[in-house]
Amino acid sequence: MSVDGFIADPDDSLGGADGNRLHHWGQEADGETFRTDGVAGQLMAEYNATGAVVAGRRTAEITDHWGGSHHGMPIFVPTHRPPGPTVADQPLVTYVQDGIESAIAQAKAAAGDRDVLVHGAYTGQRALEAGVLDEIQIHQIPILLGRGRRLFDVLPREIELEIVRVIDTPEATHLRYRVKR
Amino acid sequence: MSVDGFIADPDDSLGGADGNRLHHWGQEADGETFRTDGVAGQLMAEYNATGAVVAGRRTAEITDHWGGSHHGMPIFVPTHRPPGPTVADQPLVTYVQDGIESAIAQAKAAAGDRDVLVHGAYTGQRALEAGVLDEIQIHQIPILLGRGRRLFDVLPREIELEIVRVIDTPEATHLRYRVKR
Repeated sequence: MSVDGFIADPDDSLGGADGNRLHHWGQEADGETFRTDGVAGQLMAEYNATGAVVAGRRTAEITDHWGGSHHGMPIFVPTHRPPGPTVADQPLVTYVQDGIESAIAQAKAAAGDRDVLVHGAYTGQRALEAGVLDEIQIHQIPILLGRGRRLFDVLPREIELEIVRVIDTPEATHLRYRVKR
Repeated sequence: MSVDGFIADPDDSLGGADGNRLHHWGQEADGETFRTDGVAGQLMAEYNATGAVVAGRRTAEITDHWGGSHHGMPIFVPTHRPPGPTVADQPLVTYVQDGIESAIAQAKAAAGDRDVLVHGAYTGQRALEAGVLDEIQIHQIPILLGRGRRLFDVLPREIELEIVRVIDTPEATHLRYRVKR
């Protein structure tokens, strides 16, 4: 997220100039390989250690469900509509049509002792509203983008957080919060 | 600022419930006295050590120019309209009608070696756009307010920042950025 709260270009393209800028901290100089050293490497390792993913439909479809799994882990897609045709060949991909609570519950069951990664601002906010999001991790990048898609739109109520971890690097401030209930 | 980017109630009242919540970190338990100990005391001391203030007209008028000075320091109010009647009795208050650049320049001249404090989100953003804001300090509070007035609205261009200082406390993450040119 930029300091002014944006996470993507105005048209929400994944490869847009702004979207790329926000991911520099985790990438090698080639702009493609993920870093494996230092804080970025540690955070990438945590990301890859999650036991299941809940992803918004748009992200899931743009990536073709990351080829069928998220680093070998199952993917749950909350949606109101039936899945597209490619899902039949992707046994680790489940479209969940009975609500975000169900999608999170199924993902938690599949993940066992591991964390569930919730992917996408829209999906994260629906999980927050439903009271089924436990933590929020923000990689806050020292730039003002000025416009774009916001990580947080308007929410129906205040939600108190607890600061769990702050990692201070020149490229980003990595903030981890627990959602209070 | 809340984690979702808000700095005041939707009606921008200074004493609103949300506005108060965002200031808890700097206040004693009575909710009125400013803390003088610890990180909050250090930051309050820095705040009070500024040599001049540039404040938006609305904030300046609501507080009646903090009684005529900001902790003894001069106040500059960028505006398009002539000042109200109380200003005649407040020699340290100057209404500047030829632009934000002029207001900042006059404040810097008055402040000498000290920093100038720019007060208010609207005024800060105008200074940013004009290229005359050197630093941004954000006290990021672990709460999602859900709605209200944002610290950053839409800006006409991207602005890169440099992280100058991160202070991690349970009550707030205090982030200081330098504006790159």
